[in-house]
Amino acid sequence: MSTATPVAVLGLGEMGRALAAALVKADVPTTVWNRTPGKADELIASGATGAASAEDAVTAAEVVVVCLFDHASVHEVLDPLAQRLRGRAVVNLTTTSPEQARELGRWAAAEGIGYLDGGIMAVPAMIGTAGSEVFYSGDEHVFQRHKEIFDHWGTSTYFGEDTGLASLYDLALLAAMYVMFAGYMQGAAMVRTAGISASAFAARAQSWLTAMTGGLAGFGAVIDGGDYTVPGQQSLAFSDLTKMLDAVAELGIGGQPLAMVQELIRKQRDAGYDEHGFARIYESIAAPR
Amino acid sequence: MSTATPVAVLGLGEMGRALAAALVKADVPTTVWNRTPGKADELIASGATGAASAEDAVTAAEVVVVCLFDHASVHEVLDPLAQRLRGRAVVNLTTTSPEQARELGRWAAAEGIGYLDGGIMAVPAMIGTAGSEVFYSGDEHVFQRHKEIFDHWGTSTYFGEDTGLASLYDLALLAAMYVMFAGYMQGAAMVRTAGISASAFAARAQSWLTAMTGGLAGFGAVIDGGDYTVPGQQSLAFSDLTKMLDAVAELGIGGQPLAMVQELIRKQRDAGYDEHGFARIYESIAAPR
Repeated sequence: MSTATPVAVLGLGEMGRALAAALVKADVPTTVWNRTPGKADELIASGATGAASAEDAVTAAEVVVVCLFDHASVHEVLDPLAQRLRGRAVVNLTTTSPEQARELGRWAAAEGIGYLDGGIMAVPAMIGTAGSEVFYSGDEHVFQRHKEIFDHWGTSTYFGEDTGLASLYDLALLAAMYVMFAGYMQGAAMVRTAGISASAFAARAQSWLTAMTGGLAGFGAVIDGGDYTVPGQQSLAFSDLTKMLDAVAELGIGGQPLAMVQELIRKQRDAGYDEHGFARIYESIAAPR
Repeated sequence: MSTATPVAVLGLGEMGRALAAALVKADVPTTVWNRTPGKADELIASGATGAASAEDAVTAAEVVVVCLFDHASVHEVLDPLAQRLRGRAVVNLTTTSPEQARELGRWAAAEGIGYLDGGIMAVPAMIGTAGSEVFYSGDEHVFQRHKEIFDHWGTSTYFGEDTGLASLYDLALLAAMYVMFAGYMQGAAMVRTAGISASAFAARAQSWLTAMTGGLAGFGAVIDGGDYTVPGQQSLAFSDLTKMLDAVAELGIGGQPLAMVQELIRKQRDAGYDEHGFARIYESIAAPR
């Protein structure tokens, strides 16, 4: 008879199945449920217990992992089970906004449910591998008590009691990633006009951008300090991208990613900050009005 | 008496001075000239020879390094010296567009001047250090013959006979960098709404973005292959950033960098490519019409 903490996984989309599979593989007693049937078959064959209802799944578990479609579906599934969840721990890995995570945290607190919100920094195929990381925020007690379970998914990082933090960090890093990808596409489109492959550019861009991430700490220090006139910075006037945008137009391709940066620069220059450092473009985003 | 190749440096802005200083430090016989006087004093004190005119500087040299304000100023300085430059090598490190570099290459070829165009992937303070790299394109003979001189500035990389390649690669990598920086600012503005410092976010963003540059090679392969339906890609429909933009709006900050990516996605989705891979946003840039 196992003394391990029993876990339920509600929601067996691709990510939910990956989370459940990692638990089953680690011999964690795992009960699984999905709104539409059929998704659990493979998991049950490999050792999970199938539940006929979300209530059955919750009843069998001490830790309830939720990985549903969105914020609304979390409420749809959990609201009727609030009493059943009292004293149990809910770990919500559904993708939600920070505000939605905070709302769920307040709901859970009012119901006497331990609540941890999470953000998964991995695609399903990475779950359980060294490259996978999951962010958590909310009830620290829940995190500390069950961290060993979470570690089966990858590195477990706790950010604090503000329930929205994990989602916020998740979204912020994903946002930075998508924008970086668009920057790569801008460069790839430029060099392809001279017959250079996107693969050849990827190799160069990977090492160049990796090196340039070394500049982020400096921007961070300036932004936190709030003084964009600290010496040693590249000025906004020097950073003007007009020549670069002209060169891109000459090549006959679009310059949307670069034009976005130029707008952030222009907004600050229009406000009279020509000689302030480049990091000041932060203000064009943080205080857009 | 020195048998080393004599070099002239025309243009002693901050970058020109750094280039000349690295040569002087390496005991390369260096003659320097600037349109307005006074910029050469420190270099002369450390061993450079000051020239009263660009013609004097060119006459003293076998390799003529040009680091002026822009394409027009290169012609202004070099055109009257065309005959004097015949048989000599010009290495133009002035920031120009790829088309401008090609035009200068044609001009030099017509005048019987060996011509190499360069792009400096470093700030002046980095010249001569391990992190500095200079790109070259144009006359390969000039590159091979004088590479030892160029190596005093950092790693020397030759891209090919197309004179515009160095400038094109330079601009493409700088473009990718600026866009990545804007992505960091987007994320930093998001987490600061919860009181997380831009420095703390920089540390996380640095390792996250570095890891995510690992995805560029995959995008490159798909773009080069031209088939955005290759299995294993994240679809454009899945990549839709509406929820993320909603979350950003909820935070009360701007979403300009993310909105730019969303526009690239939307353009392809509007054309019916919902199930094609994310790399297809490349087409929104490469074929903007």
